[in-house]
Amino acid sequence: MTQLFTPKTEIQNRINRFQELMEEKGGDLAIIRHSADLYYFTGTVQDGHLIIPVKGDPCFYVWRSSRRAEEESPLNNIKRIKNFTHLIELVKKDGFAEAQEVWTTFDVIPHSLFSFYSKKLFSNANFSDCTHYIRTVRAIKSPWEIEQIRMACRVIDAAMSEIPALLTPGIDELEFAACIEAILRKNGHQGFLRMRVAQGNALSMSQILTGANGAISSFTLTPAGGPGVSPSFGMGSGHRIIGPGEPVSVDLGGCFNGYLGDETRIFSIGALPDTLERGLDTMIELMERLEAELCPGVVAGVLYQISIDFMKSSPFFENFMGCDEKVQFIGHGLGIEIDEYPFISRDNQMILKPGMVLALEPKLVLPGLGLVGVEDTFVVTEDGFERLTETQRKVTSQGIGKGHAVYEAHQ
Amino acid sequence: MTQLFTPKTEIQNRINRFQELMEEKGGDLAIIRHSADLYYFTGTVQDGHLIIPVKGDPCFYVWRSSRRAEEESPLNNIKRIKNFTHLIELVKKDGFAEAQEVWTTFDVIPHSLFSFYSKKLFSNANFSDCTHYIRTVRAIKSPWEIEQIRMACRVIDAAMSEIPALLTPGIDELEFAACIEAILRKNGHQGFLRMRVAQGNALSMSQILTGANGAISSFTLTPAGGPGVSPSFGMGSGHRIIGPGEPVSVDLGGCFNGYLGDETRIFSIGALPDTLERGLDTMIELMERLEAELCPGVVAGVLYQISIDFMKSSPFFENFMGCDEKVQFIGHGLGIEIDEYPFISRDNQMILKPGMVLALEPKLVLPGLGLVGVEDTFVVTEDGFERLTETQRKVTSQGIGKGHAVYEAHQ
Repeated sequence: MTQLFTPKTEIQNRINRFQELMEEKGGDLAIIRHSADLYYFTGTVQDGHLIIPVKGDPCFYVWRSSRRAEEESPLNNIKRIKNFTHLIELVKKDGFAEAQEVWTTFDVIPHSLFSFYSKKLFSNANFSDCTHYIRTVRAIKSPWEIEQIRMACRVIDAAMSEIPALLTPGIDELEFAACIEAILRKNGHQGFLRMRVAQGNALSMSQILTGANGAISSFTLTPAGGPGVSPSFGMGSGHRIIGPGEPVSVDLGGCFNGYLGDETRIFSIGALPDTLERGLDTMIELMERLEAELCPGVVAGVLYQISIDFMKSSPFFENFMGCDEKVQFIGHGLGIEIDEYPFISRDNQMILKPGMVLALEPKLVLPGLGLVGVEDTFVVTEDGFERLTETQRKVTSQGIGKGHAVYEAHQ
Repeated sequence: MTQLFTPKTEIQNRINRFQELMEEKGGDLAIIRHSADLYYFTGTVQDGHLIIPVKGDPCFYVWRSSRRAEEESPLNNIKRIKNFTHLIELVKKDGFAEAQEVWTTFDVIPHSLFSFYSKKLFSNANFSDCTHYIRTVRAIKSPWEIEQIRMACRVIDAAMSEIPALLTPGIDELEFAACIEAILRKNGHQGFLRMRVAQGNALSMSQILTGANGAISSFTLTPAGGPGVSPSFGMGSGHRIIGPGEPVSVDLGGCFNGYLGDETRIFSIGALPDTLERGLDTMIELMERLEAELCPGVVAGVLYQISIDFMKSSPFFENFMGCDEKVQFIGHGLGIEIDEYPFISRDNQMILKPGMVLALEPKLVLPGLGLVGVEDTFVVTEDGFERLTETQRKVTSQGIGKGHAVYEAHQ
């Protein structure tokens, strides 16, 4: 398989849309270094500083590897820099140094880099934060981007179809996760999920939580947390022997060519207890209710409010989207990062538009019992939506453990 | 397996050492949020802000999950915060708000967080960067930390021993990597390697490069890069069918309880070509030369210079530590992150001390042919060193592909 490079027209369209916004908001240029933003605007994550002026061609100053950047990026101006002093020289020579209104991403660039930009590179400029504008541009996916996300979702669906064979009674939760992650990785996953609000953490490819582990909250703003392998990354799967009649929540972040898909399904060795199955059915019903509303023009916060109103009459209201540490959203945009615009969250006034890709994830957390719910990835279309993850939504408890056991149970 | 929490005496010793340095350098308090530093000083990565005053008990203000933080951290003062406004109130009430000299980690905290700290939380303070001091304290590992690293190295050695059975002719490089990563993950790996200088990237557990892929450079400051699965994370394994007589470089970052080990070994289906085997033997000889010098008191930069002097008379000098984009180091400290003090790099005046843990990785990059070399993890002891990775160093070409093929070859 050869690598898929981002087409030139893609990059050009993205830069054009960002430049229009910059002109409207009064920016002179933006300087970008965060890897997700670099990938979006250049087609590569090689280490460098991208300058996008309000008019004219961007210039990508690359430290390493400039040869890789030239190979992977369709940008015309790619220059090799030896060090920061060299960068200052080139930026001056290229006529960017006199910019007055400079944008950068305050949310992710380290303070030391900001100091360099503001004191050494653009010492006369006024700096402002362009995080919101970059996220706004990135929220509308092109057909090419949707195709990458569709591929990521296909890989997830394929992994979901292998789960009945992998889920053997007595298997350790982490071992089960390792088997599924290996399937994603073999099919081109980069090995981790980019998350913008990460505080130095990356997310693992899967969040597989079984039985009571599904009700353990953690540091990320997600309905479920999980114990994790140790307090050093206390999230996701831990060690726990999976038994019969427990909810096995399989939340997979697939990745194709840097673009993510997101899907959650519930499996069970033998029948799920009635309460949990009713809970899952309620979440499926809510998902169908949300699908009935999902179209361009709808306000993100309204979808959240519809969910709350729907749940108020349910016996599971107290368990909706977390238990003691609830989250106030039922979905999120995704693309290069797992936490993109639009957030389907309380009071969010953002209006859904064609091309937005989002995951909806109505979930219930039942202390001592676990986690049940569904999650699908959707793209908003001109007249509604298309669902990109296709696995059926009801609990899968048939055929579990009947396939070949690829791994023997842990210890 | 239950989770291993960091003992109270560990945390107390770390804070004491940091406070002594703070007193010496004139700091009033430090505020810390980066996950690796939080794990070191609190024993948890739950999301919060840790204040360490120059004297007295630290206080950890936790947003989510405060219950998890209380369970995992031996700190006495853990307070739940609802939002930033609440944090400001509590910090004032606890008497920290009047600090004059405030430390934080300029290298990793986002500029937006720095603005909040400096304008809202400690609005009268002078801020300075404590990155170097935290790295200095973290460079000296306790016996407990060395035990975690030893366990990480054991898992790597165990994975190395399974490689002859997994390396079947015709297997795809990425599929081979996925099999090995699954072994690490099953044994408690958190799924990614923390890297401080990451620009929003995380490293995958393995860097497995075969044949010509071993000579592709990339964005990280490492002797080898690799194509990666796509330009979205252009580093590490890519798609490439592994054939006979090629160097299969297996570089594994093991992890146990958040602590890393690092080891590289070369495998080959059938005999390696003579040139490559001679290259590998030269790297093993250099490693032995370095081991003869490795003890407390030696200057890091001197070890680098010894390597350069050793290589000057070698026909492989041009290929040492990279080819067109060389790195100027032959090793690095490691612990919670893969890039800790001491860097065994050109001109680095840092003196090695007992308790420092480091990986030495003499490697050759031969364009068109690939990568050969060795890497081991060592701890500096009172009178020399202990090697923590134990697999034999010569190329392994016996018994390859003779075991059970766990996976079928990709497509």
